[in-house]
Amino acid sequence: MSSEKTFHMTPDEFRRYGHAVVDWIADYYSRIESFPVLSQVKPGQIRASLPEVAPEKGERFDTILNDIDKLILPGITHWQSPNFFAYFPSNASGPAILGDLLSSGLDVQGMLWSTSPACTELETHVLDWLVPMLGLPGKFLSSSTGGGVIQDTASSSSLCALLAARERATNYTSNQKGCDGRIVAYASTQTHSSLEKAAMVAGIGVNNLRLIEVDENFAVRPEVLAKQIEADKRAGLLPSFVCATIGTTSSNAMDPIAEIARICRQHDLWLHVDAAMSGTAALCPEFRHLQNGVEFADSYCFNPHKWMFTNFDCDCFWVADRKALIKTLSILPEYLRNQATEMGAVIDYRDWHIPLGRRFRSLKLWFVIRHYGLEGLQHHVREHVRLAQQFADWVRKDDRFELVAPVPLNLVCFRHKAGDEANQIIMDRLNRSGDLFLTHTKLNGKLTLRLCVGQTNTQERHVVNAWKRICEEAEEA
Amino acid sequence: MSSEKTFHMTPDEFRRYGHAVVDWIADYYSRIESFPVLSQVKPGQIRASLPEVAPEKGERFDTILNDIDKLILPGITHWQSPNFFAYFPSNASGPAILGDLLSSGLDVQGMLWSTSPACTELETHVLDWLVPMLGLPGKFLSSSTGGGVIQDTASSSSLCALLAARERATNYTSNQKGCDGRIVAYASTQTHSSLEKAAMVAGIGVNNLRLIEVDENFAVRPEVLAKQIEADKRAGLLPSFVCATIGTTSSNAMDPIAEIARICRQHDLWLHVDAAMSGTAALCPEFRHLQNGVEFADSYCFNPHKWMFTNFDCDCFWVADRKALIKTLSILPEYLRNQATEMGAVIDYRDWHIPLGRRFRSLKLWFVIRHYGLEGLQHHVREHVRLAQQFADWVRKDDRFELVAPVPLNLVCFRHKAGDEANQIIMDRLNRSGDLFLTHTKLNGKLTLRLCVGQTNTQERHVVNAWKRICEEAEEA
Repeated sequence: MSSEKTFHMTPDEFRRYGHAVVDWIADYYSRIESFPVLSQVKPGQIRASLPEVAPEKGERFDTILNDIDKLILPGITHWQSPNFFAYFPSNASGPAILGDLLSSGLDVQGMLWSTSPACTELETHVLDWLVPMLGLPGKFLSSSTGGGVIQDTASSSSLCALLAARERATNYTSNQKGCDGRIVAYASTQTHSSLEKAAMVAGIGVNNLRLIEVDENFAVRPEVLAKQIEADKRAGLLPSFVCATIGTTSSNAMDPIAEIARICRQHDLWLHVDAAMSGTAALCPEFRHLQNGVEFADSYCFNPHKWMFTNFDCDCFWVADRKALIKTLSILPEYLRNQATEMGAVIDYRDWHIPLGRRFRSLKLWFVIRHYGLEGLQHHVREHVRLAQQFADWVRKDDRFELVAPVPLNLVCFRHKAGDEANQIIMDRLNRSGDLFLTHTKLNGKLTLRLCVGQTNTQERHVVNAWKRICEEAEEA
Repeated sequence: MSSEKTFHMTPDEFRRYGHAVVDWIADYYSRIESFPVLSQVKPGQIRASLPEVAPEKGERFDTILNDIDKLILPGITHWQSPNFFAYFPSNASGPAILGDLLSSGLDVQGMLWSTSPACTELETHVLDWLVPMLGLPGKFLSSSTGGGVIQDTASSSSLCALLAARERATNYTSNQKGCDGRIVAYASTQTHSSLEKAAMVAGIGVNNLRLIEVDENFAVRPEVLAKQIEADKRAGLLPSFVCATIGTTSSNAMDPIAEIARICRQHDLWLHVDAAMSGTAALCPEFRHLQNGVEFADSYCFNPHKWMFTNFDCDCFWVADRKALIKTLSILPEYLRNQATEMGAVIDYRDWHIPLGRRFRSLKLWFVIRHYGLEGLQHHVREHVRLAQQFADWVRKDDRFELVAPVPLNLVCFRHKAGDEANQIIMDRLNRSGDLFLTHTKLNGKLTLRLCVGQTNTQERHVVNAWKRICEEAEEA
């Protein structure tokens, strides 16, 4: 018999070190406002403090944990700081982190139902829960023709939707023969860049992705879309897919889903709705008008890891016709065959996305929904929207600034009237100060500041302070 | 001012509940052998115990945590049980789980260097560490022309490699014009099914993926590969990509990398090496002969989340020419522009894979390498190989059984000589007993049992018992 020498952490060591890590995180959230929101390090600075080669001998856990403070924190941009107003948020919460910890601890593979039935069934169940919670159509339910799945990001959801559209439009032959060169996809000039990437990946090509022009509110012009589809049809092409957005990344613009859906049905195009950020708002009935027409979507996604207090990654993706998706992405080698699958009695999620292996991500989503309840989720979403609207009011009433786009929810696009350079200076100074972090976009060719209120712990005082600091830097600029 | 009513977990609540979850996991590992390895539930059984609709009001954390035992555990297949010998393992460890917990707590987005420099730099650094640790070529280092990145799974790495090959072969025009229909990719009949999926996704089409026949050891026949490439060239096609495998999923077969590489260089094809499972063995110099020729690979991946004690997901992917990969996957919308990127001084990992957002996954890998040290990792890998070889010896010496494939490392493919039905019965009985879990494949058309020794906590006594139980069921069969 071999000696049972081991380098593994024992359960008791895990308990002790685990408590230390939990304490570290609790302390981190208690002191998070003391850090500059945007990391101030220079390229290469973090690497310079790390040893050139990996250790030959194992190290003590305390040493490793200490290095988080010493070596890692300086290079962290604090996405969980209440003074984080940049991009779109990635807002975590206690129940999400702990649900995810359980997922890491169990560390099951959910590729097939049979490889851990609870991993598949909880996911299906929670995604069914979300359908009425968000006012989505019943056809997205697993008890109907559709169903939901957790993907890593909206980029992957868009890609899967585009692939399913590609296959449906070519009678499921592109998977065999290669992408049919006549396929055309449509988005707007404001659609997320992941659509461009999806067209590249799927072999459709960027030249066959039409970026339709938008109106003065940065929403797609349905009449232009219709004309383009008709022109492409006349040219012998195969219009197949439209991506409409509820809340674009640049300015939170709302594409007119109902009108787009009408055009899609007329021409038999797959309609994918990307509500990555703003989908969370639909938890509140008063914001659901923004998704009018979603009942005609073939697929839809939103990211609880953006605004619904669920740490990354967690993108929820629904299809109206799960068979179309599965037919597009299914492969079945012998070593994955099993009775439950053969009987057709179960969902095997590996056929719903690109990767084979999959994490038990529904645990954290389940924890979040149960911890907050619908009531708690609604409360915080409403509060974020209220704070953003208040900020927009301050901008509106200040002669030095202007709003550059409508503010339907929690993103405010604004600029100092003194021009691009002034805005760049204001932003750079704010971000360098570490007091808050915001980012920019270009709208109508002009550099525009974006302030998004969606971080879990952002309260009124943080937004008040952000405006105060912006005004101070505007004085200087 | 608004009332600061909140539904969030406070840092102190997080501390208390966090300790409880850590304790739950520690206890889980202490009692893990008491559960049936393969979940015994029927389809729908887990969902049947869950409430139909989501809660309106938030629930207490203890209630939620209690439900893990009550509602979830029956539906868990225990991938972390030392009696798990199925598929390939997905082996977690204490330091990995705690590194991942920190990643959840910080919850940063690593899409750009600037969105959290430490997230990018630690990843680059740890992947550079691994190059000499695994005896990989220096061109994979970020200080050379290449570099490494963490992907979710080997499926995604294969897809990215195939896309880069597609673009290189068409002078980077397929992204614009759509996939060139002349592209041909090559793998073997034993290559992982994700290659087929990648060919579908990339718009190349399964018809343009040649599955080359294998020899008696299930390794690809290089002379057949060479002939097929030549035939395709004569036919006016564009041979572009070969995937070679170090340790196939079915039987752990080793493709002859050096010979394949010679053919790839001769015809200017991209060579991707998939070592998802067996790459970990290269930590030990005595197993590196299995990857002879890897110095000629254009890309390479292995999964620490399989055999290197790092919880899912963590696939390490290297390229020899990072420019080819970045040129294939790069997009740059205005809202992601920033100074560090413009200066070209940094890596922006969103250009190295499909998703935009990304988790701080290098933390867990860093924790694992530092906790175990190279010495500890080698020890456990060697022990797993020793136990598998010992098991193979028992099979070899038992007249009732036969080995069906060579056993280069830690996977044993064997069968009872009484035929497919007997083997199916033996496997089903073992798996239903809950004492251990193994799966099957088909080799030379025959149903073959697979026993893989790679679970973190598997010791000699578990392998001894597995053999004892297999022999018992063989008596019955």
